[in-house]
Amino acid sequence: MTPPQFPTQECEHNLMDQVVTLIEDRPPNMQKQQGLFPMEILKRVEKPTNTLTDGIQRIDMRNTAYGLAARGEYGPAVQMGVQKSLPGKYPLSAAQKDVIDHIALMKSNPVAGEKAPIPQDPGILTHHIKSFGYFLKADVMGTCKVPESAYYSHDKQGKPIDIRYEYAVVIVMRKELKAMRASTGHDWMGDPISFQAYQHLGMVAETMANYIRRLGWDASAQYGPSFVNRYSVLLPPLLLAAGIGEVSRAGIILNPFLGLAFKAAVVLTNMPLVPDQPIDFGLQSFCRDCKICAKACPSKAIPVGDKVMYNGYETWKLETRRCASFNFTNKNGTMCNTCVKSCPWSNPSTWAHNLVRRLVMVAPFTRWIAIRSAEITRAGMTTHEKKWWFDMEYVDDVIELRE
Amino acid sequence: MTPPQFPTQECEHNLMDQVVTLIEDRPPNMQKQQGLFPMEILKRVEKPTNTLTDGIQRIDMRNTAYGLAARGEYGPAVQMGVQKSLPGKYPLSAAQKDVIDHIALMKSNPVAGEKAPIPQDPGILTHHIKSFGYFLKADVMGTCKVPESAYYSHDKQGKPIDIRYEYAVVIVMRKELKAMRASTGHDWMGDPISFQAYQHLGMVAETMANYIRRLGWDASAQYGPSFVNRYSVLLPPLLLAAGIGEVSRAGIILNPFLGLAFKAAVVLTNMPLVPDQPIDFGLQSFCRDCKICAKACPSKAIPVGDKVMYNGYETWKLETRRCASFNFTNKNGTMCNTCVKSCPWSNPSTWAHNLVRRLVMVAPFTRWIAIRSAEITRAGMTTHEKKWWFDMEYVDDVIELRE
Repeated sequence: MTPPQFPTQECEHNLMDQVVTLIEDRPPNMQKQQGLFPMEILKRVEKPTNTLTDGIQRIDMRNTAYGLAARGEYGPAVQMGVQKSLPGKYPLSAAQKDVIDHIALMKSNPVAGEKAPIPQDPGILTHHIKSFGYFLKADVMGTCKVPESAYYSHDKQGKPIDIRYEYAVVIVMRKELKAMRASTGHDWMGDPISFQAYQHLGMVAETMANYIRRLGWDASAQYGPSFVNRYSVLLPPLLLAAGIGEVSRAGIILNPFLGLAFKAAVVLTNMPLVPDQPIDFGLQSFCRDCKICAKACPSKAIPVGDKVMYNGYETWKLETRRCASFNFTNKNGTMCNTCVKSCPWSNPSTWAHNLVRRLVMVAPFTRWIAIRSAEITRAGMTTHEKKWWFDMEYVDDVIELRE
Repeated sequence: MTPPQFPTQECEHNLMDQVVTLIEDRPPNMQKQQGLFPMEILKRVEKPTNTLTDGIQRIDMRNTAYGLAARGEYGPAVQMGVQKSLPGKYPLSAAQKDVIDHIALMKSNPVAGEKAPIPQDPGILTHHIKSFGYFLKADVMGTCKVPESAYYSHDKQGKPIDIRYEYAVVIVMRKELKAMRASTGHDWMGDPISFQAYQHLGMVAETMANYIRRLGWDASAQYGPSFVNRYSVLLPPLLLAAGIGEVSRAGIILNPFLGLAFKAAVVLTNMPLVPDQPIDFGLQSFCRDCKICAKACPSKAIPVGDKVMYNGYETWKLETRRCASFNFTNKNGTMCNTCVKSCPWSNPSTWAHNLVRRLVMVAPFTRWIAIRSAEITRAGMTTHEKKWWFDMEYVDDVIELRE
């Protein structure tokens, strides 16, 4: 069965349609997507554009940047920052944290004893589940097989993590661009901008996992932020495998329509799905030449040099200690998003930006123009007059105004 | 302080901008809104366009359509329909119901002992709270004073309801149009389409109420569906007062950009706010002439005649018994949304539909063209090829396929 084609009313899509002649007979995972963004125009490849070797080791959750910071490996000031709870410093993110914490308390419903009497064809099931995700306000959806190495080896308490699910449904939501534009990237809106995506993602992932279990397959909703402690997998390898983006200089995954300005959640499941393929939109050479995020990073954690091999992945290696240390000792805000904000790909989907996106994809040598004009126009600069929030901090449970 | 102007990237807005010359010096509640829709172009009026007398009585929650159906006043078949739980019939809405039920379990955080040291000016606070709502994905926001008569007199258990809050923040989210178009309006997607809005609204309202309490003012999140039992107020009077829409032939509130295709939640609070004003976009004469929803209604619950006075409100009076009876005994689906789907105002914000909207607003006599062309093009017709869900029903906890 060919999944039905879903034309969309959204302007980004329509504008792209004017630029791009859509190919009619595509392989299934390149058929017109239902979301806001024309993911189907992207070149699909067998393997991610950064080299992945066979030697990838599963990560112990206690050894993530957050885990190391919490254990005191980055020094006592950083450890104290973790303990004091970064989102709890600021009333707005504290309110969001309460809601996310509550959502994460949701108990899993049992897996139905028998499979629902619907077609068991993986293509039909994939289309159905992706459609459900878009219906629930996902901006981009993807599917993949879960590489074993994407599972953490142990949880935060040191308990080994089982490899339990074969497939992953990736749900992507973009960050709110107006607040991002009005933020410096490392002020009080760092956490709220991320949590805005996370609170919707968490709720949507819980709904989807609940539904899949009702249909008779096991499923687990995986979402953040890290304080929620819901993850048994690392998300970046799944985002690569599901064709959500390529690895960027900032060491995280970059989507061609959202840049770094998105968050993702995952539903792990044993429902048989048709995996998407990785994408190649020329980011490896773009990030090699563009160093805007590295220059903008207030903690100098993003390398200006070349990719290295790290745990079997070819990647630009973020200095996680610098990044975490800056975040957890930030006196004038919550979590830092400066790399997200400064990246030229994070620009909104206006026709002008979409034209540049498309130009860079089809004629990679034009990246020089895109990089240089992003530098000149300072696309990611802060527009303070659009700021609507107040800078506040809890001091002994009482709110004080900052600045 | 003048609230900052927030230009938006969204296409509906830009397209409207091409049609409408924006007036620069507007009263505060007509300044450019932040959401997707140009609410600021609407004519604001002192009072709602339907007459409201002084004789409005507070409603007992046990006497709402749902309450009457549950008590058996509409007969045993309808009562059994209520008891069997309409959303529980269908796996997809049942999954959403689990999530909404869980969100509604959220405990209120305490109101901070002292007010946050932010400006206490109602204009600044209103701008701040509305901005927060838009940030959290609201499609339209509004504020109003809560008329005493909007409070229910008693809850479902017969306990009197206190008049506790002076102000209301109204949060509106639109229904997902693609699923609505692929649905007949009274098939299995009735509840899921409403719940998609409700689950996001509930989470956003809880976040906002939590935040306001942290700032030192009491607040209460009010959201549905009715099984959640969170309401102490009726929403329609608040939607009227906050200028979200006018009363329609279907007896519910209609917004000029969303038609009937939206759901709302409310945060009641004692934070001092600047109320918005009711709107007048000519709906009373439009609905008088257009009877599309009345003709489409499968239960013939929508009157073809004139408005009547009902409990002090001038309104088209829905026959709630017919409407509820159809819903709760619907053998081939969940809750009915046929009026929502058939309404010409529910059409998406394409440039063509926006042009017609604008034309009808500035030159009301053109409504004949709009109504006739909606009839001819059957704008609300079902496009089955876009259907992505399966028709299923729980029978003794086991899923059976329908059709």
